[in-house]
Amino acid sequence: MAVTQTQGKSPLILFLALLGFCTFGSARSGKLLVVPVDGSRWNGIKAVAEELSQKGHMVTVVIPEVSMQMGPSNFYTTKTYPVPYTKEYLKSLQDAQGKNIFSQKPFLEKITSGLDRIQNMSHFFRLTCESLLYNKELMNFLREQEFDAILTDPVLPIGVIVAEYLSLPSVYLLRGIPCGLDFKATMCPSPPSYVPRFFTTNTDQMTFPQRVLNVFVSVVEPVFCKLLYFLYDDIASAFLQRGVTVAEMMSRASVWLMRFDFTLEHPRPLMPNMVLIGGINCAVKKLLPLGGKLLAVPVDGSHWISMKPVLIELGKRGHTVVVAIPENDHGLVIINVYGFLSFQVLWRYTGPIPDNLPDNIKIMKWLPQNDLLGHPKARAFITHGGTHGIYEGICNGVPMVMLPLFGDQSDNAHRMEARGVGVVLSINQITTEVLLEAVNKVINNKSYKEKMTKLSALHRDRPVEPMDLAVFWTEFVMRHKGAQHLRPAAHELNWIQYHSLDVIGLLITIVVVLVIVTVRSCAFCFRKCCCKKPSLKNKKNKKSH
Amino acid sequence: MAVTQTQGKSPLILFLALLGFCTFGSARSGKLLVVPVDGSRWNGIKAVAEELSQKGHMVTVVIPEVSMQMGPSNFYTTKTYPVPYTKEYLKSLQDAQGKNIFSQKPFLEKITSGLDRIQNMSHFFRLTCESLLYNKELMNFLREQEFDAILTDPVLPIGVIVAEYLSLPSVYLLRGIPCGLDFKATMCPSPPSYVPRFFTTNTDQMTFPQRVLNVFVSVVEPVFCKLLYFLYDDIASAFLQRGVTVAEMMSRASVWLMRFDFTLEHPRPLMPNMVLIGGINCAVKKLLPLGGKLLAVPVDGSHWISMKPVLIELGKRGHTVVVAIPENDHGLVIINVYGFLSFQVLWRYTGPIPDNLPDNIKIMKWLPQNDLLGHPKARAFITHGGTHGIYEGICNGVPMVMLPLFGDQSDNAHRMEARGVGVVLSINQITTEVLLEAVNKVINNKSYKEKMTKLSALHRDRPVEPMDLAVFWTEFVMRHKGAQHLRPAAHELNWIQYHSLDVIGLLITIVVVLVIVTVRSCAFCFRKCCCKKPSLKNKKNKKSH
Repeated sequence: MAVTQTQGKSPLILFLALLGFCTFGSARSGKLLVVPVDGSRWNGIKAVAEELSQKGHMVTVVIPEVSMQMGPSNFYTTKTYPVPYTKEYLKSLQDAQGKNIFSQKPFLEKITSGLDRIQNMSHFFRLTCESLLYNKELMNFLREQEFDAILTDPVLPIGVIVAEYLSLPSVYLLRGIPCGLDFKATMCPSPPSYVPRFFTTNTDQMTFPQRVLNVFVSVVEPVFCKLLYFLYDDIASAFLQRGVTVAEMMSRASVWLMRFDFTLEHPRPLMPNMVLIGGINCAVKKLLPLGGKLLAVPVDGSHWISMKPVLIELGKRGHTVVVAIPENDHGLVIINVYGFLSFQVLWRYTGPIPDNLPDNIKIMKWLPQNDLLGHPKARAFITHGGTHGIYEGICNGVPMVMLPLFGDQSDNAHRMEARGVGVVLSINQITTEVLLEAVNKVINNKSYKEKMTKLSALHRDRPVEPMDLAVFWTEFVMRHKGAQHLRPAAHELNWIQYHSLDVIGLLITIVVVLVIVTVRSCAFCFRKCCCKKPSLKNKKNKKSH
Repeated sequence: MAVTQTQGKSPLILFLALLGFCTFGSARSGKLLVVPVDGSRWNGIKAVAEELSQKGHMVTVVIPEVSMQMGPSNFYTTKTYPVPYTKEYLKSLQDAQGKNIFSQKPFLEKITSGLDRIQNMSHFFRLTCESLLYNKELMNFLREQEFDAILTDPVLPIGVIVAEYLSLPSVYLLRGIPCGLDFKATMCPSPPSYVPRFFTTNTDQMTFPQRVLNVFVSVVEPVFCKLLYFLYDDIASAFLQRGVTVAEMMSRASVWLMRFDFTLEHPRPLMPNMVLIGGINCAVKKLLPLGGKLLAVPVDGSHWISMKPVLIELGKRGHTVVVAIPENDHGLVIINVYGFLSFQVLWRYTGPIPDNLPDNIKIMKWLPQNDLLGHPKARAFITHGGTHGIYEGICNGVPMVMLPLFGDQSDNAHRMEARGVGVVLSINQITTEVLLEAVNKVINNKSYKEKMTKLSALHRDRPVEPMDLAVFWTEFVMRHKGAQHLRPAAHELNWIQYHSLDVIGLLITIVVVLVIVTVRSCAFCFRKCCCKKPSLKNKKNKKSH
């Protein structure tokens, strides 16, 4: 049974919402359904949902009863649905992921356990997805609401299927889909000669072997997509009672809010319904639990590093990953603390605190990363390379040491390294000396700071703030019930038509026929003209015989 | 010798400019060079130049001493350069163009006179271009100014060559280049399967024969480009004293401000350095010479038509075109006036006024078209389909009857017709009855108004006004000395590399070699296994013999 948590809005918030409603008038307020995805992806979509709610729209967020990070807010209505698993089960899935990254198992064993993990994750996704779709009470409630649009992250396409079922125009908010399904679904050209593929760590300037790899990956991408999403093709087809694929459903999205811009990604073609909102998280100002006093701690040092890295916290999603590393596995926890004596270090750490902690190390369970990076004395940022962290580094112009773990982190990190604003280290080969050397490099080699300052200036110099863009385009889709005028006609063509292979075939046929006819005609004329005499002779010869 | 016209700024304007300067601070004010193109294209660039000047930048506009429309302003500094032709010569070129459109000559004669006209225009362009480039005094002055950037319309690439000579980052402002050189120079994919080519009147939904035509045009486009621009390739190479092409110079542009959006154009891929500013002209509010009283004239009628069409004025550029039509050539002037008795007609007309003009016809020499179209009683708009007019129609939501003459007008008109917001008529087959029927159709068939209202709402619903976008991106290029981070790496690849033909060749070779090796190995093994016995027998046979 679906459990409804009504809005716990304070009188002040209700007043503000009412004020917003009155200001924009009923013509501008609408009803938005939000189906988010758990993990760090939740932060971006939550912020947009709250912003829209504060603008006077009725926002309903649908989440499972059990999740790692998703939850209610004072700003929007939350609808939860029961799921057949517990928080401990979720935690065990996350721990398994962390263990796999740091494990020293042989390659084959790692592959086997990786496949096991994927199977477990797929099972979990199916459970979540079906728990929502077959919750008749909740789905009927959602249908009755007559929403204007849906805002969702399509990477786990629960919201995509809900949108299809309720025939709602969709706004997608995402970083990207690893197999390039986002560009396929939008019919966006991505020439593999200079658009690097995910997981290749290629940049846009590729050597011949790198281009070979890039083309190869682009060829196998559809297979990879099929492997990733066939589960959802099945779920959607069974639920909607007609054959449908995720790619097909995604192709109907109205607007794609992409969490990147061209200070992170390399310049590439885009489609009209793609809106770049990279750095949207930098504007998200959280209320500091320490009332701003926290910032006073590190300022006395000559320079300091924000460490939200390997050792303590790997992105909000990977929160438990590092807690699961045995302290003496790489000896990292102990060694690193004492390796950074010459810096003032801010350390987000939820595990057991090491003994004899030196004075320069400040440990805290939560760290207002974006605000700290904005402090003029922040010199370096050790990060795992998640998009949120990368953009917090760019926004604040702090050079980075990056230790990518999984997903898009490696690609993000290599893009930053290619721009000369950071150094990438391999998590499996790291020692305190290597980390310290890298940190000293980005601090002492002035080119890192200079390039990062320029990159930051480019990123922040924009006509509209990313949050305002996200809000505008979501409202646009709500107002106009979609964005049909941005949908390219390419969607109506099959592969042969799109690449004009039928036309090229016809043109080649015409040319070939013309050439053959011309050659034969010439040959015929030639024979008629030049072979006349011999044929007469032959005749004579024949007669003489 | 270059003649300098210093800024005739009034004290109020100087105060405002100073205020702008103080508000933004010296860090935000810069020096901008503007090299515009004559005709209707001048209006857009002039408005942006004035806006930038009012924001505190030092704007210098360079124009020939003789031009049809270009001239000084109270806001920017104008630098003129002498040219070896007179205003009468310019007028004769324009008249020839008009005559050619309306002439009833046989096809072959039309082609011959068309070629003559092109030769005359080329001669004129060469004169203008070389008059600026070889004006040492002016060019030295421009170099000494150390501009931050150049704003130009690349369709006649005088500004493009100046930018190359002065090594200035460029901002281009244009509607498009007929042979698709804009998309070639930006390396923007334009699949001919759904991106209609100029002059084909195709939409994005094409039948097979239309796609054949589109592919054919896309194949011959480079040849057409060469024909259009080889003159400038020569001029630039001679002036810069190195082999260079217009396409190559254009590829170095920082930002392209494109005067369209997806209410006019069909959705298609874009590149990161393309900024859509379609409808920028709607915001340009001119001071009404009649102090606003003009609007009072037509309001008494139940509905009225703004006629800035065929008969009187064909866009600012074509001003003299229609004056050159003999009044009784199609009998249009007389017939039309009396054909529209049931409407209140506003008529922009600079020629001799017909006798016995009915009361419903108001004739005036200048007409504030955008303001008139914005009047709630405006019911239809007869236009030649220039981009400015089309956008004024869209902005104000007035259905259109379009009579395209040349350039992009036919494509613009057919795109509007495909959206169901107007009717296209052929200028050579028009009669009063046909025109009247079309006007009645767009007025009485409510779907035209409904669709136009929706299109207008889509067009006006945008996060930033086109003028603000144009100003922002020009300032961006001035601030950052270009927009290198938006330049795709595709520019560094040759044709074979861009299309990955070398990689595909290698992959095919590998596959072919693998297949051959496998087949041969299998054949060898097969022979070894299956042909063993016969060979033994043979040996035995041989022995027995």
